[in-house]
Amino acid sequence: MENIYNAFMFMQEVYKKRRRAFLEAIRDREITRGTILLLANSHCPRNYPDNCYPFRQDSSWLYLIGLNIPDLACTLDIESGESCLYADELGLEDIIWTGELPSPEELAYSVGIEKVSPTSALFDSLGQAPKLREPVFILPPYQDRQITRLSEIFGAAGSSLRELIHRHVDPRVILALVSVREIKAPEELTEIERAVSITKVIHEELLHELKTGWTEKDAADFVLSRASAQGCELSFSTIATCHPSVLHNSPTEHVATVHDTFLLDAGVETPLGYAGDLTTTFPVGPGFSHQSKEIYQVLCESFKTATNALAPGVRFLDVHKKASLTITKGLVSLGLMKGDPVEAVDLGAHALFFPHGLGHQIGLDVHDMEGLGEDYVGYGEELKRSEQFGLRSLRLAKTLKPGMVHSVEPGIYFIPRLVQKWRTERICENFLNYDIIEKWMSVGGMRIEEDWCIIDKGARRLGPAFDKSIEAIENVRANR
Amino acid sequence: MENIYNAFMFMQEVYKKRRRAFLEAIRDREITRGTILLLANSHCPRNYPDNCYPFRQDSSWLYLIGLNIPDLACTLDIESGESCLYADELGLEDIIWTGELPSPEELAYSVGIEKVSPTSALFDSLGQAPKLREPVFILPPYQDRQITRLSEIFGAAGSSLRELIHRHVDPRVILALVSVREIKAPEELTEIERAVSITKVIHEELLHELKTGWTEKDAADFVLSRASAQGCELSFSTIATCHPSVLHNSPTEHVATVHDTFLLDAGVETPLGYAGDLTTTFPVGPGFSHQSKEIYQVLCESFKTATNALAPGVRFLDVHKKASLTITKGLVSLGLMKGDPVEAVDLGAHALFFPHGLGHQIGLDVHDMEGLGEDYVGYGEELKRSEQFGLRSLRLAKTLKPGMVHSVEPGIYFIPRLVQKWRTERICENFLNYDIIEKWMSVGGMRIEEDWCIIDKGARRLGPAFDKSIEAIENVRANR
Repeated sequence: MENIYNAFMFMQEVYKKRRRAFLEAIRDREITRGTILLLANSHCPRNYPDNCYPFRQDSSWLYLIGLNIPDLACTLDIESGESCLYADELGLEDIIWTGELPSPEELAYSVGIEKVSPTSALFDSLGQAPKLREPVFILPPYQDRQITRLSEIFGAAGSSLRELIHRHVDPRVILALVSVREIKAPEELTEIERAVSITKVIHEELLHELKTGWTEKDAADFVLSRASAQGCELSFSTIATCHPSVLHNSPTEHVATVHDTFLLDAGVETPLGYAGDLTTTFPVGPGFSHQSKEIYQVLCESFKTATNALAPGVRFLDVHKKASLTITKGLVSLGLMKGDPVEAVDLGAHALFFPHGLGHQIGLDVHDMEGLGEDYVGYGEELKRSEQFGLRSLRLAKTLKPGMVHSVEPGIYFIPRLVQKWRTERICENFLNYDIIEKWMSVGGMRIEEDWCIIDKGARRLGPAFDKSIEAIENVRANR
Repeated sequence: MENIYNAFMFMQEVYKKRRRAFLEAIRDREITRGTILLLANSHCPRNYPDNCYPFRQDSSWLYLIGLNIPDLACTLDIESGESCLYADELGLEDIIWTGELPSPEELAYSVGIEKVSPTSALFDSLGQAPKLREPVFILPPYQDRQITRLSEIFGAAGSSLRELIHRHVDPRVILALVSVREIKAPEELTEIERAVSITKVIHEELLHELKTGWTEKDAADFVLSRASAQGCELSFSTIATCHPSVLHNSPTEHVATVHDTFLLDAGVETPLGYAGDLTTTFPVGPGFSHQSKEIYQVLCESFKTATNALAPGVRFLDVHKKASLTITKGLVSLGLMKGDPVEAVDLGAHALFFPHGLGHQIGLDVHDMEGLGEDYVGYGEELKRSEQFGLRSLRLAKTLKPGMVHSVEPGIYFIPRLVQKWRTERICENFLNYDIIEKWMSVGGMRIEEDWCIIDKGARRLGPAFDKSIEAIENVRANR
């Protein structure tokens, strides 16, 4: 009993501490008064109003408030730090259908919130009832339901997303929240590591189990079924494909043949909401084709270059460039590219093969905090996103700090429509041997992804080791 | 190849036939001109804009148009029957990320739609571009995103749901759609039967596998994992509970003990979108308690009474009443109720134990067509919903017709807060032996549910037989 009580007090303190740190970070950015208005997510109807998708709480709410219940709201007074939970008592009908729940007071107490009001007070509070201190700041809403709720709260029915953001979203508030959420506390690292470990086991299982004749959808169903059996949800829609050159292919009824290369990009989300995200590429048959093996080797070298470069104080943009340079050197040595590799990377020639970014932060969202705005999360005040093809898809660029968690995921692809377009428009033709590239198109595409945490003296791979070398992968596939 | 071509032409004809039948049913209701505007569903963001729930198409769209692609729209001219698909060509960026897709023209052709326009034409079409014939009718939207889209299409940014429904939803159009969707064609029955059969296997597996020590969430995860392994989704959020007296309990970390009665209400949805929906109640230990056995026996009799009464021309309201009467008689014989059973049912006294309805239609939605409005689907023009507690929760009441598919799901519950309220307010005290009821509260609750199809000469249970008698259930639980 004492243990439960201690755990309970611990969580109460955790949420109070996080809210305090958030408000301090806001005040550090010279906002000294006003109110932060936070909304819990709502249920999303799937095919009719009462048949909803499994409820997923908003991640900033989970981080700051924790209560995994829809439709709640909370206000934080920036100056005093006082917090108020907006929640309603259940009626008898609710209790018959959905059972008893803690009272609003009990909910608030459990996460260290001082005050409680009925939800209606919030809809009034900017009119007559207890006034919120102006200005009122919100986080950018991403569900249409939240836009509707905010419009109603602010008494501006039918406000568009743009109007709401213009009036109530302040970049300094977002940057303050990013600054606290991006440094993972020990209890968060434990949970992310758990997500990564479960994800890793599922990837290894598929590597062992997938047979010719499986469809892509079979593989995706396999992942979901293993995740559910572990009590987890998926952190994003599984990419399970025999056509890795389509970057975000939805699983189809396409049947895996002995000539295919299979790519699995999938991760689980733990019941507390933390995500894992890994990518594994392997031959459906017993081994890689000769060309695929050459490309996979280049990919492994790029992955190694990138992970060796991870450390506090290093800009992830530079890690991305190092990984790109390794890919370019490898492709030059195979005759697919030519010229000076450094110059080629500067001009973005390698992006024909590697058109996406090297990674993104991971936490309560698999692309952590992306709902707050990618540039605030990945570039901050320090950097501006490039407009160059390839580099413009880099989600994380800024300087790494201890406690940050992110993916490392170089890829090499042969995308027919992209090669065709570049060749026709003679893009970067001084760096690309198009005639040779055409002979390698059947490689399709490959990606390796693992999740890392920045520590004081470098970086640490999350989850148990998983040997993705050619030898290890072929050993599994040949000896099934 | 010829087979594929034949299957393809078959589906094209199916959708054309369904749309023709829908428009005829509209014209039968004296709407002779105007336009039906149908919207495909959109992706629903889960925890940030690009991380969406698995896409689920709208069921009326699936029925009439079939294309399982988000964000499309379609118009049907009521007079001429001409149809137009609103869809856009993919750009190179889309192709790189999501792969090639058939062109709008190919999509339209595959489901027998004559015309194609870019989506922008729709947003214009009520302004300058090719005008839709007025009046324009819509189906009631249930996703906030659709409300936003409709507001934009009608050039009334920020219209509320109420305004949209007032202006563009006509009950005659809804009743016309219900009249065609509720009679299941052979190819639909095959698919529903498949959903029910897979669902039944999962229920039987859980009946065999569940052990003391499992949490409710373990059981729900088990169901999801088995559904995924079969390539299916869940047709609704699984109810897996040791506390069946909470009707729609979400699975918790509550651990099943040898004294608990377990209730599973769960169903799968096939890849084509058709739903199964079954409920199984069983003891966690080797057998029911004495009291639970008595109540379960009453429930079985009620279930049998109901299913024996199913036939074309019979009102489901009367089947519900027969099932209620059987429950009442059973509870009178056990001493829980008293007085004349017929009178007790008329006054709704039995609803203390059976506060929900006997069933609902099943098809592309597990509560079929519920998004169109429960009363249109379950009561039509024929009946008005009662306001009496219990009866007011009856979803299906109208006269049964061959081709209709629905659940039969009587339940008996001991809901503490409800008993307490009724006793305090002395509700129906001439029919309820509250002192005795208090001694049966530990039974908690039970429900049996199977899915049936009305045929010319009665009704047919869907899926393979599944013996839910006390002997059969206890035999499984005692011999695991």
